[in-house]
Amino acid sequence: MISSITLRVNYSETDQMGVVYHANYLIWFDRARTELMRETGLTYKELEQQGVFLAVSTVRIRYRAAARYDDLVLVRCWVRELASRRVTFGYAVDRAATGELLATGETSLVSLTHQHTLTRLPDHVLDLLKPIPDPVDL
Amino acid sequence: MISSITLRVNYSETDQMGVVYHANYLIWFDRARTELMRETGLTYKELEQQGVFLAVSTVRIRYRAAARYDDLVLVRCWVRELASRRVTFGYAVDRAATGELLATGETSLVSLTHQHTLTRLPDHVLDLLKPIPDPVDL
Amino acid sequence: MISSITLRVNYSETDQMGVVYHANYLIWFDRARTELMRETGLTYKELEQQGVFLAVSTVRIRYRAAARYDDLVLVRCWVRELASRRVTFGYAVDRAATGELLATGETSLVSLTHQHTLTRLPDHVLDLLKPIPDPVDL
Amino acid sequence: MISSITLRVNYSETDQMGVVYHANYLIWFDRARTELMRETGLTYKELEQQGVFLAVSTVRIRYRAAARYDDLVLVRCWVRELASRRVTFGYAVDRAATGELLATGETSLVSLTHQHTLTRLPDHVLDLLKPIPDPVDL
Repeated sequence: MISSITLRVNYSETDQMGVVYHANYLIWFDRARTELMRETGLTYKELEQQGVFLAVSTVRIRYRAAARYDDLVLVRCWVRELASRRVTFGYAVDRAATGELLATGETSLVSLTHQHTLTRLPDHVLDLLKPIPDPVDL
Repeated sequence: MISSITLRVNYSETDQMGVVYHANYLIWFDRARTELMRETGLTYKELEQQGVFLAVSTVRIRYRAAARYDDLVLVRCWVRELASRRVTFGYAVDRAATGELLATGETSLVSLTHQHTLTRLPDHVLDLLKPIPDPVDL
Repeated sequence: MISSITLRVNYSETDQMGVVYHANYLIWFDRARTELMRETGLTYKELEQQGVFLAVSTVRIRYRAAARYDDLVLVRCWVRELASRRVTFGYAVDRAATGELLATGETSLVSLTHQHTLTRLPDHVLDLLKPIPDPVDL
Repeated sequence: MISSITLRVNYSETDQMGVVYHANYLIWFDRARTELMRETGLTYKELEQQGVFLAVSTVRIRYRAAARYDDLVLVRCWVRELASRRVTFGYAVDRAATGELLATGETSLVSLTHQHTLTRLPDHVLDLLKPIPDPVDL
């Protein structure tokens, strides 16, 4: 499953170079990951209510072209890898109007208890998060 | 007591107009308020550990001149008004290099329990937060 | 005309009190104002391309109830007042699921040239921005 | 040369997990990189005034332990690699009170003209940015 969301670049996301400030892509990744989980049938909110917290442990981003103010951007998200206590998501950001690839990335998240100790992902979660081949090179 | 902090404007705080995006001033106010409380002898962190949460209930800001990338800005904070369940802080932001007044503002915070219901500020907190006359017009 | 947008609260917008950090409402206001202008027929992006910049000069927000992670919030925006070099927008934020009013606010923006000096709003812009009575008390 | 800055974690940087939201580390890296450049004798602001813009092209972060509200964190930055049109910076974030390593990372920046096309870094900039061995494993 690949989930995708469309976002409108807000003025707050630009910087004085006239492009989207690079840290904002991590927030876009988060929004896309949240919708991917919702589409699997278990929202991240529900997962936390079940006592499982996913904390970002690694991040990689490759910026290829700049997103600009008022652009519509398409953010795709999918599961790359799954282990008992870790899930890795892939991301691709395109400019919606042109299909131009703006950025790709990956985040790994580890499964924590409320006390912030590592814990196995519950089986029903492992069943929902199916890794797929990358649709684009990261 | 007037507390003051000096901040360096980061690239992330600018927007494509080449100035600091207006929402960042609320974060600067928060930083200055935190230091004011620390200087009174009770940090906000300790206040939360005592079960008292301060939630922002109103905000007013007047922007007078733009802060720019790499500027040093001086943020002053003081207590304007104090009631049993509410404290109002005033703020002034100056460009450090010139003393030019960039913005003034006010935030009111209400005192909440961990369950987010209104509660009286503890007496030892009321004793620490002494209102003073505004050093600048807001 | 009242414009409205629906936003999903992201994890990045929460703070350790478990609610949306107060500065984010200014970004929501910005998003709603951008869509209001788009609906009038002139986007803010086009306005900048015509050499007119709108800079926020005052802000007022009243927070009434907390928005929470994964909430859908509805942000309404309208023009409150219009003058030759200043336009004032009103805002109301509701929790979409319940209709509960979470916050109201107002921002005034002044019209600037590229050199950041005050300028009259062009007549075709004044014609588009029609003030209406507030739909809710601010 | 290793540059280091000390930052106080603000409430705005926390999320509802009670820790610093992961995207903020990129902003901390930016602040540290800015100070490293200032210490070399050429600020990034001056570099832009000379018509050279540095745009982030890749990011890697490894999160090891959580930073928390009101923590003082120490952010170290150094040059890892230098090429004619690209400079790579390394970063390490420690909790100041304990010396605990919280995160490490790397960002590569490419040199652009005002028109956002690739350009060589000027010789006087290449002379200032001296790569050193990593002080910690990334």
